[in-house]
Amino acid sequence: MAEKILVINPNSSETVTQAIDAAMAPLRIEGGPSIKCTTLAEGPPGIESQQDADRVIAPLLGLLRREERNYDAFVLACYSDPGLFSMREATRKPVLGIAECGLFTACTLGQKFGVIAILRKAIPRHLRYLAALGISGRLAAEMPLDLGVAQLSDGPRTFARLLEVGQALRDSHGADVLVLGCAGMTTYRQKLQAALKIPVVDPTQAAVSMAIGRVCLKWHVAAE
Amino acid sequence: MAEKILVINPNSSETVTQAIDAAMAPLRIEGGPSIKCTTLAEGPPGIESQQDADRVIAPLLGLLRREERNYDAFVLACYSDPGLFSMREATRKPVLGIAECGLFTACTLGQKFGVIAILRKAIPRHLRYLAALGISGRLAAEMPLDLGVAQLSDGPRTFARLLEVGQALRDSHGADVLVLGCAGMTTYRQKLQAALKIPVVDPTQAAVSMAIGRVCLKWHVAAE
Amino acid sequence: MAEKILVINPNSSETVTQAIDAAMAPLRIEGGPSIKCTTLAEGPPGIESQQDADRVIAPLLGLLRREERNYDAFVLACYSDPGLFSMREATRKPVLGIAECGLFTACTLGQKFGVIAILRKAIPRHLRYLAALGISGRLAAEMPLDLGVAQLSDGPRTFARLLEVGQALRDSHGADVLVLGCAGMTTYRQKLQAALKIPVVDPTQAAVSMAIGRVCLKWHVAAE
Amino acid sequence: MAEKILVINPNSSETVTQAIDAAMAPLRIEGGPSIKCTTLAEGPPGIESQQDADRVIAPLLGLLRREERNYDAFVLACYSDPGLFSMREATRKPVLGIAECGLFTACTLGQKFGVIAILRKAIPRHLRYLAALGISGRLAAEMPLDLGVAQLSDGPRTFARLLEVGQALRDSHGADVLVLGCAGMTTYRQKLQAALKIPVVDPTQAAVSMAIGRVCLKWHVAAE
Amino acid sequence: MAEKILVINPNSSETVTQAIDAAMAPLRIEGGPSIKCTTLAEGPPGIESQQDADRVIAPLLGLLRREERNYDAFVLACYSDPGLFSMREATRKPVLGIAECGLFTACTLGQKFGVIAILRKAIPRHLRYLAALGISGRLAAEMPLDLGVAQLSDGPRTFARLLEVGQALRDSHGADVLVLGCAGMTTYRQKLQAALKIPVVDPTQAAVSMAIGRVCLKWHVAAE
Amino acid sequence: MAEKILVINPNSSETVTQAIDAAMAPLRIEGGPSIKCTTLAEGPPGIESQQDADRVIAPLLGLLRREERNYDAFVLACYSDPGLFSMREATRKPVLGIAECGLFTACTLGQKFGVIAILRKAIPRHLRYLAALGISGRLAAEMPLDLGVAQLSDGPRTFARLLEVGQALRDSHGADVLVLGCAGMTTYRQKLQAALKIPVVDPTQAAVSMAIGRVCLKWHVAAE
Repeated sequence: MAEKILVINPNSSETVTQAIDAAMAPLRIEGGPSIKCTTLAEGPPGIESQQDADRVIAPLLGLLRREERNYDAFVLACYSDPGLFSMREATRKPVLGIAECGLFTACTLGQKFGVIAILRKAIPRHLRYLAALGISGRLAAEMPLDLGVAQLSDGPRTFARLLEVGQALRDSHGADVLVLGCAGMTTYRQKLQAALKIPVVDPTQAAVSMAIGRVCLKWHVAAE
Repeated sequence: MAEKILVINPNSSETVTQAIDAAMAPLRIEGGPSIKCTTLAEGPPGIESQQDADRVIAPLLGLLRREERNYDAFVLACYSDPGLFSMREATRKPVLGIAECGLFTACTLGQKFGVIAILRKAIPRHLRYLAALGISGRLAAEMPLDLGVAQLSDGPRTFARLLEVGQALRDSHGADVLVLGCAGMTTYRQKLQAALKIPVVDPTQAAVSMAIGRVCLKWHVAAE
Repeated sequence: MAEKILVINPNSSETVTQAIDAAMAPLRIEGGPSIKCTTLAEGPPGIESQQDADRVIAPLLGLLRREERNYDAFVLACYSDPGLFSMREATRKPVLGIAECGLFTACTLGQKFGVIAILRKAIPRHLRYLAALGISGRLAAEMPLDLGVAQLSDGPRTFARLLEVGQALRDSHGADVLVLGCAGMTTYRQKLQAALKIPVVDPTQAAVSMAIGRVCLKWHVAAE
Repeated sequence: MAEKILVINPNSSETVTQAIDAAMAPLRIEGGPSIKCTTLAEGPPGIESQQDADRVIAPLLGLLRREERNYDAFVLACYSDPGLFSMREATRKPVLGIAECGLFTACTLGQKFGVIAILRKAIPRHLRYLAALGISGRLAAEMPLDLGVAQLSDGPRTFARLLEVGQALRDSHGADVLVLGCAGMTTYRQKLQAALKIPVVDPTQAAVSMAIGRVCLKWHVAAE
Repeated sequence: MAEKILVINPNSSETVTQAIDAAMAPLRIEGGPSIKCTTLAEGPPGIESQQDADRVIAPLLGLLRREERNYDAFVLACYSDPGLFSMREATRKPVLGIAECGLFTACTLGQKFGVIAILRKAIPRHLRYLAALGISGRLAAEMPLDLGVAQLSDGPRTFARLLEVGQALRDSHGADVLVLGCAGMTTYRQKLQAALKIPVVDPTQAAVSMAIGRVCLKWHVAAE
Repeated sequence: MAEKILVINPNSSETVTQAIDAAMAPLRIEGGPSIKCTTLAEGPPGIESQQDADRVIAPLLGLLRREERNYDAFVLACYSDPGLFSMREATRKPVLGIAECGLFTACTLGQKFGVIAILRKAIPRHLRYLAALGISGRLAAEMPLDLGVAQLSDGPRTFARLLEVGQALRDSHGADVLVLGCAGMTTYRQKLQAALKIPVVDPTQAAVSMAIGRVCLKWHVAAE
């Protein structure tokens, strides 16, 4: 199959892109669509604020214009889904956001999802988007790791904190499925799921799964 | 890849199963998971009532028990998602309902989805489920074809009615994406989308797309 | 009055049926409709899972068919309201579920209801139904006793736990009315209400109250 | 049984009180609670505005104080439920509003209720209350008869208009159950239900049904 | 400018009216509308119950009738917005409630608002109104000071309790903006905001701000 | 008073800015805050798509940086509120969006608001934002004028169409208040309100009204 999916990490961290790329391995079907992961060179080191999210839209649209003819579907690998609706206007090809796909996928795995954010200040922005998606009623709670980007790369410490927050979401807030609220946490998904014994969704995997079907079906949608 | 997906048509109509099977063709990736479609022998000719929906749960669970070891994921191909939550208890393997997957997929393609039901009397049942899914806020409206099963096989007449209902959903109710409210309408998807110029979701294709990702990720979830 | 109400306990526990029967005493008006409680012989010892709930639908419909001519209204005495919508299709006579009636009755007694479940794993199923009923906005919280069926019969221990959970729902979650999330807890209602000083609803009493009015009004509704 | 229910018509129309009284006949069980209907002498001829609704609260509380010891439950027979929450503070005995009980009863008879109001200007007030009750999601639509009080007594004309509005609610708005949005329409309930073939709820009958159970259970609730 | 705004404190506490009056100082623009604060002589010392709220409606309407020609807009300075909808019927001039305006203003300052009530028993009444306003989804939580009126005048103790409750709303419930659930807390607004570092809304200031615009625009609305 | 409000028209149409400026006249209080209207030079002629909305964020932030010290509050005069949340991060001074303020103001003037959009394709974007604001429950309907920018300047034709759409929102969808879904329609507000006899909100006037109060109160909020 010649179909190609482009996963775009809108922050400039190659480490995150590499982690995403590794998480794509099981979705790379021999004979299926290729999955390429790329870093938005113009992106900030991390998307931590609304300004960060808004600032990447222009370069994302630039990247889309340059690559539109080369790919069959695009996945936006940032839990804020920045520029998702602009990108959808700019191409007839499928564009999927990892937040929306991660959350909808979670809705097929449990009744109440918990979300693990990195920073506390991201939560109002995420809640606003959740409301826009119309699924606030399925939210158990969203809680932050309260870790800085530097600390995030410290595996054991990050995992300990993921476990702590995940347990609170499960036991105090009634979450029966969790969504990782950042593309950069993908490394911990399986281990966290094994420890907590409830499904844990890596939103990038969720979005690329849906993109695979979309390209197989050659499902182009008229741009506005 | 040795992974296998079983798509179960819980009504006993082989014609519907064959239509579903044909709709799966683009999702059959060389080297990807196999997709087999089967008919629930014990099912009624069509699932038209809550009783029909409830009645197939026991044979569905029987089928699941017999086939559980032979497949890696199961897709329930009836827009009422009958027995979905029971099946999820009965296996650690993924079970996806076409209604939930079709509706969530629609949410990534437009802001307000319209649903085309076959029969008027199915709508309260569908609305109840939509509310349980927590996405009633995304519904534009659901409208029936008001066609009997016999008439449904009459292609031109059915398509004319699909077009009429689809136009009403789009123009009078503001739907910017449609969901076919029955696995048996799949044949008309592309033609209807082309005519209406808004995305039309075949829920079985939506669910199998999600199942492909699920089996690639070997994403087993602890049964209750 | 010759009107007759049949209260069906869909689990096979005669002890539960007897407790329900005792709770009906004040609703047995001399000259009013008779209230008979019966046990679904084919039911499981307790309805603890979605599979248990779905499994009783067929025998419930069988019972309904056998008894339909002998009664004027039917009350389904399980907090999961299993098969409620199928039963409504199968008869023109009123069929009331104790979950819906208990919850709506609670809505006339307070602004936020708390629900006491027996098992934690029942909560997602209950929340799904609550959403389908469209009254999730009135929920304070649902919390489990986390007691096994054997322990439930141990009066003092069960009451101590009911008190503990009820206090948490009232004081930490703002419930100003409670619903017992199981027909089998009826024995504790009055004592719990007296201790907590907020209304406590036994859902079977709530449903039978509504059924009395329904049969007096001879309010038959056309089956689908 | 010595229990007594007082149904209070808060408008001063004896004709309406007599119609309510007649509608109570089937609920008067030999040996059951007595049901007395009374007119609030201080009420306006009809409750058509928020001012009308607010104005009756003081005399309603006066009536409650005078009669509190003589009755075991109170039913407020105006679709605006004026003063309901004040009355609940003023007595430990049950006070039920016909709007809340009519609407919750409708929720056990269909998935989407339609409401028939007398006047268009009442609808925003009703919608505000419906939202406060938390069940706006179950509303199909509310439509007015647009008839004056004088015209309302003209049986054939009123019925023709009820039929017209009821058909619109059923066929264009998807209502599968109707609620009469005024205590004074009770006379038409059965005929309207027979004509439309969907359940039609007289809210006063719904509320008194629930009150019967309440008094049988001697269910007093602590006043605030 | 000759425009005049009348702020009505519907409880009889002159101390509260004086505190409101002081809080209006920054909104008194030289050349802008005058802002007069008045006490409803017939009001209770504090509005602590639904009965208190309902009881002031008649004297409020009396005051409105007497003063209607003398003012251009009216602000109802009680967090229960008692009689708001009756007053709107009684005049074509703007009438604003401090609860609605305080809550909507909070929605422009944060994603989730917390509300600080004086008494626990007020919370169900407030939640009912919040639901009627249709913005329950923006509520983080409402928590009470649990202080009596006498204690409220004790500045340091009240502030300590405001701080404690405010911190709980911010840190445990995720509020990023607070609303003072009583006109009488206005004195503490700035100090509380400075301590908590999230916006704190005095609802009377919010309502009068909106009233200033309304009178400048001479925005009369047809009474019902 | 030295306080200054800057109203930013993010499209480059000076005609629209002039119309906004004229609509501000009644809000310019002698002695009150000054209100200056400015055009975003870098903006597109009209904001008609999500791309248009996203594209203005960077220049809006640039303008804010340049002018932040010169003004005390900022009003974003585009019904899409583009960049609102980024701007709020970038300054401690109040930033108000006309969509949010127009909608919340409408909620104080009626129970169900109708929105008049210029273009049909803007509606899904508006509905997404309405859901994010959490007030979808108050929407009657949103309908488009379906006029191009050129046609919009043709007064009589535009007004005829506004009247037609406004009547449909009022009579068929139950709106009892209207919001003009574009800063550029302000000229027609009074005439439309007079013709329809329900309140019509110009969202820029609503936002500037709220901004006046904000600057009077010197209400700075900590930037994220």
